[in-house]
Amino acid sequence: MNPPPETDPTVGEVGERGVIEAIVAAAPSTRNGDDAAVLLNAAPNSRAVVATDMLIEGRHFSTTWSTAEEVGAKAITANFADIEAMGARPIAALLALSAPESTPVSFLRGVAAGIAARTGEYSAELVGGDVTGGDTLILSVTAIGSLGGNRPALTLDAARHGQQVVAHGNIGWSAAGFALLNHFGRADVPERFADLVTAHCAPTLTPGRGVVARATGATSMTDNSDGLVVDLRTLAHRSGVGVDIDSAAIAPAALLCEAAELLSVDPWTWVLTGGEDHTLLATTAGDTPSGFRTIGQVTRSDTVTVTVDGEAPAYDTGWVSF
Amino acid sequence: MNPPPETDPTVGEVGERGVIEAIVAAAPSTRNGDDAAVLLNAAPNSRAVVATDMLIEGRHFSTTWSTAEEVGAKAITANFADIEAMGARPIAALLALSAPESTPVSFLRGVAAGIAARTGEYSAELVGGDVTGGDTLILSVTAIGSLGGNRPALTLDAARHGQQVVAHGNIGWSAAGFALLNHFGRADVPERFADLVTAHCAPTLTPGRGVVARATGATSMTDNSDGLVVDLRTLAHRSGVGVDIDSAAIAPAALLCEAAELLSVDPWTWVLTGGEDHTLLATTAGDTPSGFRTIGQVTRSDTVTVTVDGEAPAYDTGWVSF
Repeated sequence: MNPPPETDPTVGEVGERGVIEAIVAAAPSTRNGDDAAVLLNAAPNSRAVVATDMLIEGRHFSTTWSTAEEVGAKAITANFADIEAMGARPIAALLALSAPESTPVSFLRGVAAGIAARTGEYSAELVGGDVTGGDTLILSVTAIGSLGGNRPALTLDAARHGQQVVAHGNIGWSAAGFALLNHFGRADVPERFADLVTAHCAPTLTPGRGVVARATGATSMTDNSDGLVVDLRTLAHRSGVGVDIDSAAIAPAALLCEAAELLSVDPWTWVLTGGEDHTLLATTAGDTPSGFRTIGQVTRSDTVTVTVDGEAPAYDTGWVSF
Repeated sequence: MNPPPETDPTVGEVGERGVIEAIVAAAPSTRNGDDAAVLLNAAPNSRAVVATDMLIEGRHFSTTWSTAEEVGAKAITANFADIEAMGARPIAALLALSAPESTPVSFLRGVAAGIAARTGEYSAELVGGDVTGGDTLILSVTAIGSLGGNRPALTLDAARHGQQVVAHGNIGWSAAGFALLNHFGRADVPERFADLVTAHCAPTLTPGRGVVARATGATSMTDNSDGLVVDLRTLAHRSGVGVDIDSAAIAPAALLCEAAELLSVDPWTWVLTGGEDHTLLATTAGDTPSGFRTIGQVTRSDTVTVTVDGEAPAYDTGWVSF
């Protein structure tokens, strides 16, 4: 965080009420302001879907690199991707926030603005939350979604032998952005890599992609949060199947190769183990859903659950929480 | 936290999967285990109600005093009270957890067991969450409730002049328990004050009390979380009214007086400013709801929003987040 200008008060100075007022002003909702938020009447036959994700400064994001708006936007994408991955539509978010007393109120206003902008892309909104002092800046976001109709949600356990593995969105871009930021610092990352930096600091997932997949025959779905191999391995284990990826279908984009050459690393580490892209990985028995591409096949379970072109992947680690 | 026995692994040793397995074993739910949890089909005309509350060790709870089970139970009561205070029925909870690597897995198992026991009292369950390493033990709980029928929720802005102020549950008991723990330490608090200690470490709210209040004509409701005067002042401000409390109706119980005498403090500080009881305060235009007692009247707004017997209260501070 840059030092705040003289006129910018800290959360310790304005207190709980001041913090809440700043957040609500930047992310307004008619549903906010009470002990709890009442959501819209759900559509007939719809069910509520809920997910939560805690982001800690220094572990899940860095205010050295990311703007306040990006931190807010990333927290929403990470949570809404879990709702989309069920085939549901995100409709609301809650924010529980811990912030040191020295945090500038303008920073939290920026976080709320980023949340408002990203939830707005989904026609969703921030409906409530909690604020407290604490040693570390922490955002604990809960996403609430609506699952329409009677079809089951796209859980991790319904992939079957013979189905296609499909993907929506870029894979490995967030990890490439992280590597560039780590090497150069935000100000000095060459401009041509801006999309990789954004993929790390404020990843996007096209709203409605998960609903489309569910409507067109997808069976299982997850988001690429812990790394391609790790996330597909979790899905494969839960479904009792294997997954074979076609290397040509996930080959690193030219931009990734260029960044990797500059940093003298193998771009396949980013593609296979990167995570945090929050793009969608699914299996389907039907046509490839609109916006997705085929990247592999569901196979019979084997000792090596996830293979690339039939071989053990070159890299297979992923995000570690502890 | 007591040092773990030799055979008790830490979260750093068992990793994310081990932590999740321990939590799910202690708080099982068929809805858990995916990217997000799908809740039951809501009843016709029902709406989802959501609330979140973050509890940080050293600020909101102390593992020096509280057992793991109590920490889990308190986190649920704090959140479910916000759902009850809307007149809704709690049906599910999510837990986002940050824990240092040195945390014994058995402690988290205890937290989950406390959550399972308390949610079970409401026929609710822990349906999902997130775990991450972090410097501090933090529980960020989200509660999801169901609001039946077409009547409005009991928001803070519907108290009107001439209505009764009613309360369910003890007031000031949590603060008294805190003072005793602070003075004696858990082991040495005299046994006769056990109910006060429990009121602080694992407060309870009778399930369904909020639903009853809504069904019998309550207009506004909140829970006693920040202190009696502060919580009623918030309600009064939001409704544009005043509140006059009858001192005889909130006079400290004999047990509170006994504890106060022992510690040489005025028990009215606990009653008027204590908070954290998570009992219910409501206004009603009808009969006193079952389980509630009348403690005052809604008055016309005045410069002093909350009065006791028509006078400014002797103590009027409350919980401060920053």
